[in-house]
Amino acid sequence: MPREITAYSNPLVKRVRDLRDKRHRREARQFLAEGLRILTEARETGRLPRLLFFARPSAQHPLVRDLVAAVEQNGGEAIETTPDILSKLSGKDNPQAVVGVFDEFGTTLDALDRTSAGIWLVAERLRDPGNLGTILRTGDAVGAGGLILIGECVDPFSVEAVRASMGALFTMPVVQTGWGDFLNWLRQGPGQLVGLSLDTDHDYRGVRYAAPTFLLTGNEAQGMPAEYAAACDTLVKIPMLGKADSLNAAVATAVMAYEVLAQQRG
Amino acid sequence: MPREITAYSNPLVKRVRDLRDKRHRREARQFLAEGLRILTEARETGRLPRLLFFARPSAQHPLVRDLVAAVEQNGGEAIETTPDILSKLSGKDNPQAVVGVFDEFGTTLDALDRTSAGIWLVAERLRDPGNLGTILRTGDAVGAGGLILIGECVDPFSVEAVRASMGALFTMPVVQTGWGDFLNWLRQGPGQLVGLSLDTDHDYRGVRYAAPTFLLTGNEAQGMPAEYAAACDTLVKIPMLGKADSLNAAVATAVMAYEVLAQQRG
Repeated sequence: MPREITAYSNPLVKRVRDLRDKRHRREARQFLAEGLRILTEARETGRLPRLLFFARPSAQHPLVRDLVAAVEQNGGEAIETTPDILSKLSGKDNPQAVVGVFDEFGTTLDALDRTSAGIWLVAERLRDPGNLGTILRTGDAVGAGGLILIGECVDPFSVEAVRASMGALFTMPVVQTGWGDFLNWLRQGPGQLVGLSLDTDHDYRGVRYAAPTFLLTGNEAQGMPAEYAAACDTLVKIPMLGKADSLNAAVATAVMAYEVLAQQRG
Repeated sequence: MPREITAYSNPLVKRVRDLRDKRHRREARQFLAEGLRILTEARETGRLPRLLFFARPSAQHPLVRDLVAAVEQNGGEAIETTPDILSKLSGKDNPQAVVGVFDEFGTTLDALDRTSAGIWLVAERLRDPGNLGTILRTGDAVGAGGLILIGECVDPFSVEAVRASMGALFTMPVVQTGWGDFLNWLRQGPGQLVGLSLDTDHDYRGVRYAAPTFLLTGNEAQGMPAEYAAACDTLVKIPMLGKADSLNAAVATAVMAYEVLAQQRG
C-alpha cells in the first residue's frame, strides 16, 4: 500500500526536491524523472524508480496503477501526494502525474560494442541541458549506439536534460569521459571520427559515412578546440546561407545524424 | 550622454523587467533582447532599441560604444547601470553586457513575396519558446523566406524565444495568423504544402521539393490536426528507429529544411 505524504515540510519531500540540484544528485547518486510517458518508457527498459510520487487525482489511471505495482514489486516505494507537492518536486506549475527517483547509472567506453551501431554521437563541453536531452532523443531516433560526453558537460541527469530527452536517457547508453581516454579507445578499433566545424570546405553531404561513424559536436559557443579538430578523420560543414554563423548544437547534430543514417540505410 | 540608473527601485527598471511578461509586452508593444551578439545583429538589420541598458564594466567595449552611439543618434536612450540590475532585467545570473528594449514588429501574409525563397517554415500551436527561437535560427541558416505561425503559438517576442533565435528574430520575417487565412493565401499562388507527420509511409527523402516549399510542423505534443494534414499536398515522415515516436519539433523542422535545401541547391 502506498503511503501518503501531504505536508510540504516532510523531510523526504525536501530530500527529493534537492535532487534538482547537481551537488545533491552527486551525493545521493540519484536523479529525478517526471511524467507518465517517460517513466513508462523507463519501465519498458527495465528501470524502475526507488521512489514513485503520484498525485491522488491520477491514482486510478491504469498506467499509474501499473507503475505503482511494478515499483512496489521491485522493492521500491510508491507515495501518494498532492498535486501541489508534485509541483514543488518538479519545479513546474503544471505538474506531471508522476515523479520518480532513480538510481544513477552510466556506462564506460570499454562496455560499448562499437560494431553494434552505425552512428555514435560525441559531444564535448555541452553546456545546455536542453541540448543534451534533445541530442539523446535524436540519438534514439537514428538508432545511435550511444552518446559519449567529453570534458565538462552539463549533467545528463539534470531535470531539464531528462525532460528534453523524453525518455531517451533510459534507452541510450551515455558515457562521460575525457578527450584522451576517448581518443585512445577510438583508435583501438574501427570507426571514423567526423567533426562538425565551420573551418572546412567539406559539405556534410559530400562525405561518405561508413559504419561506425562517430559524430563530434563542439561546445555551443566556441565549437571544438583546434586539437580536437586536428584529430578528426574528417571535418564537415553544414551550409549556412543566412546572417548567423552557426546552428543550435542539437539541431546541427541531428542534421548530421540523419545524413549519416540516410547513407547507411542506402 | 547616457544617464545612469543604479537603484533597483527605479520605475524604469521595473517597467523594463515587466517586459519579460507577455501581458506587459502586449500592452507596451515592446520586447527585450539581450547580448552584444544579438543586438549587433539587430543593428545590422537596421533595428535599434528604444532603450539600451549596459553595465559600466563593458562601457569601453568597442561594440558597446558603437551601439550606444547608434541608439542615441537614432533618438533612443542609452542607460548605464550595474551588472546586478542587468541580471534582474535579463533574469540570468550571468547577465549579458547589454539589454535592449525594442518596439515589436511583424509582417503579414500579403507582405510576403513567396517567390523570394525556396523554403518557408510554418508551425502551428508551437508551445515552447526555445523551439520557436531555434526554428528561426534554422530558418535563417537555410535561407528560408520566413516563419508563419498558425493559431495559438508561444510569443515569438518572449525573452526565451529571442535568446534561442540568436538574433534570427531580427532577420527572419514572422507572420502570426490563423489556419484559414493561411490556406487561402497559400492557394492564391505557387507553393506546395508539406506536412511532417507520423501517419504516412512517405519517407522525407523520397519526395521532391520544388520551390517554394512550405514546411508545416505541428504542435509538440499532439502534432497537427487531421484537417490540417488533409490540406497538405504531401505528408512526409522522418524515420524513427528507436523507442521514441517523435523528434523534438525544432529538430524535425531542421532535418526537413536541410533536405529541402540540399535538393533545391542540386
